[in-house]
Amino acid sequence: MSHKEIRSLIRIGVIGGSRAKTGFLAQAREVGRLIADRGAVLVCGGLGGVMEEAARGARSRGGLTIGILPGTQPSEANPHIDVALATGLGYTRNSLVAMNADVLIAIDGEYGTLSEIAYARIYGKTVIGLGTWEVKGVVPAASPEEAVRLAVKAVPDGR
Amino acid sequence: MSHKEIRSLIRIGVIGGSRAKTGFLAQAREVGRLIADRGAVLVCGGLGGVMEEAARGARSRGGLTIGILPGTQPSEANPHIDVALATGLGYTRNSLVAMNADVLIAIDGEYGTLSEIAYARIYGKTVIGLGTWEVKGVVPAASPEEAVRLAVKAVPDGR
Amino acid sequence: MSHKEIRSLIRIGVIGGSRAKTGFLAQAREVGRLIADRGAVLVCGGLGGVMEEAARGARSRGGLTIGILPGTQPSEANPHIDVALATGLGYTRNSLVAMNADVLIAIDGEYGTLSEIAYARIYGKTVIGLGTWEVKGVVPAASPEEAVRLAVKAVPDGR
Amino acid sequence: MSHKEIRSLIRIGVIGGSRAKTGFLAQAREVGRLIADRGAVLVCGGLGGVMEEAARGARSRGGLTIGILPGTQPSEANPHIDVALATGLGYTRNSLVAMNADVLIAIDGEYGTLSEIAYARIYGKTVIGLGTWEVKGVVPAASPEEAVRLAVKAVPDGR
Repeated sequence: MSHKEIRSLIRIGVIGGSRAKTGFLAQAREVGRLIADRGAVLVCGGLGGVMEEAARGARSRGGLTIGILPGTQPSEANPHIDVALATGLGYTRNSLVAMNADVLIAIDGEYGTLSEIAYARIYGKTVIGLGTWEVKGVVPAASPEEAVRLAVKAVPDGR
Repeated sequence: MSHKEIRSLIRIGVIGGSRAKTGFLAQAREVGRLIADRGAVLVCGGLGGVMEEAARGARSRGGLTIGILPGTQPSEANPHIDVALATGLGYTRNSLVAMNADVLIAIDGEYGTLSEIAYARIYGKTVIGLGTWEVKGVVPAASPEEAVRLAVKAVPDGR
Repeated sequence: MSHKEIRSLIRIGVIGGSRAKTGFLAQAREVGRLIADRGAVLVCGGLGGVMEEAARGARSRGGLTIGILPGTQPSEANPHIDVALATGLGYTRNSLVAMNADVLIAIDGEYGTLSEIAYARIYGKTVIGLGTWEVKGVVPAASPEEAVRLAVKAVPDGR
Repeated sequence: MSHKEIRSLIRIGVIGGSRAKTGFLAQAREVGRLIADRGAVLVCGGLGGVMEEAARGARSRGGLTIGILPGTQPSEANPHIDVALATGLGYTRNSLVAMNADVLIAIDGEYGTLSEIAYARIYGKTVIGLGTWEVKGVVPAASPEEAVRLAVKAVPDGR
C-alpha cells in the first residue's frame, strides 16, 4: 500500500473494554483481522484489552492501525498501533475516537465504551454491537463476520 | 451568600436535552428550584432546553448556576447562568460537565445526555434519572423532589 | 453582590508561573486586590504561585475568583478560588484560561504563560505584561496599578 | 515501507502560518522534502499555508504525513495529509501538534505558531526556527537543510 492510498480507505473504529474477558478478546482479534482483510483502517483507543487485540488482528493481516490515546506520550500505545496519537485529554479523548471513525464496532465494554457509543451517535455514525450495551442506536451483530460486514455496508460511498 | 462559601457547597449537575418536551422542561425547572433550596450549586451545559429551565429554576430561588459551554464565547450561555465557562470543545465538553458535578440528575435527553451519564459513571458519580436513558447505573426517581433528595444523599460528606 | 450581577462583570485573567519569585508574587497579590476593587472577576489557572497570590488578593477584597484547572478534581484548586473548574486537559487547558477572560495580565511566567499569551492574542484579547515575555502584542505596564488600569480600559463596553 | 516500521520513525512537527508569504511556503516545501528524505514522519496541523506546503514536500518524496486538525471532520485536511486526525478542539488542538512531534520546526507564523512553540517547550521538545518568533528556546536555523539537520540531531536515540 502506498501512503497516498491511506486517505481513501474507510476507517472502522473498534471500541471496548481494556479488561474484557477472553471470549471478547478473541472476537476483537477476529474483527481486527477482518477489518484489514476488507482493506479498512482500524481506529481505536490505543490501549489494552479489546483495543490491543483488534490492533493485533489487523496488523497480523497487514492492516494499518491508529490509536488515539488518553495520555501525553505516543509511546503509551500498545505495540500493534502504527500511528499513535497522544491527546492528553484523559477519558475525554473518547469523543475523538468516535470522531475519527466512519463507523464503529463496540465489543463488550463498560462506561468508557458507552461514552464512545454515545459520541458515535452524536456524530451520526453507525455503531455495530457485539455483546455490548443494548441501547437505542446500536445495531446488534451475531459474529465478528457479521459485525464487519454491517460496518462496511454502513459507510456511505464517497464519504 | 458570601463568595467564600461557594467552594463548600455541593454541586449538582443537571443534564438533558436542549429540545426536551414541555413536561420535562417543567420538571427541570422544579429540579433547579429544589437544588437552590437545598443550598447546592447547579452545574449544567449552559445552553437551552433542560439546561436553561434548570438554571431558571435555580436562579428564581437565589441559587448559583454554572454553565460549561461547547463554544468559545461565555456570552453563549443562557440568561440564567451566573458563571459561564467557554471550552471550545464542542460536544467533547460533555465530559467536563460530569467532571464538575458531585452528583448528576438526568432528565429526558438524547445521545448527548447518554455521553454525560457515561462520563459521570466513569468518574464515579451517582446519576439520578427522570424519564431518561434506562442504563445500568442510573438510579430512577419518580419526581423532581425524589431526584434532588436522592442526589443530595448520594454526595459523600466531606467530599 | 447578588448572583445575578456576576454575569455582567468584566473578567480579568491573571497568568503567570506557579514558581514565581517573591517580588512577582507580591505584584500578583496587589493585582488581585485591584481587580476586586474595580469590581471585576478574576480568572486564573487555579493552582499555585502567581495564580494563588492573585486569587488571595482578590478574595481579600471580596472579589470573585474562578480557577480553570488542568486536572480532573475541582478540589485541586488553591484555597482562594471560589469557582473551581476541572478540565482534565493538562496544560492544554491554558487555551481555556485565555478564552474565559476579557483581558489578561501576565506576570513573570515561563512557557505555560507564553502559551496563554499566545492564546489570548489568537482570541483577540489584550494582554498587559508585568515583567513577563516581551513579545509582540504584550502591552508593558510598570506597576500593578497601571496593569489593572490598562486592563479595564482595554475591555470594550457592552462586551 | 511496511506499516510496522511507522512506529519506529522519528516525527518532526512543522508549524507555521496558514497565510505565510511565498518565500516561507517554498521553505516549508523544502523542509517537508528533507524530512521525508531523512525517513522521518511529518506531523502538522493539517490545514493550509506552511502546513500544506510541508506536507506536499514530504509526500513528493514518499514520506508519511500526519495532520492534527482543529475541526471535527478528517476530510478538512489538505490533500497531502495521509493520516488526518480530527479533534474538534479548535485552536486548542495546537497543544496536540506539539505533543505528537519529537522535535519541531517553526516557519514564520503568527500567534498560533507561538502557542505551538510554547507547548513544544512545555513538553520538553526542541524547536528549530526559520524566520519565526525570536523567543528564548527557539534554535535559529539559516536554511531548510540546517533546520532539518538540527531537528534530527535533537531527537534522543531510543526515544
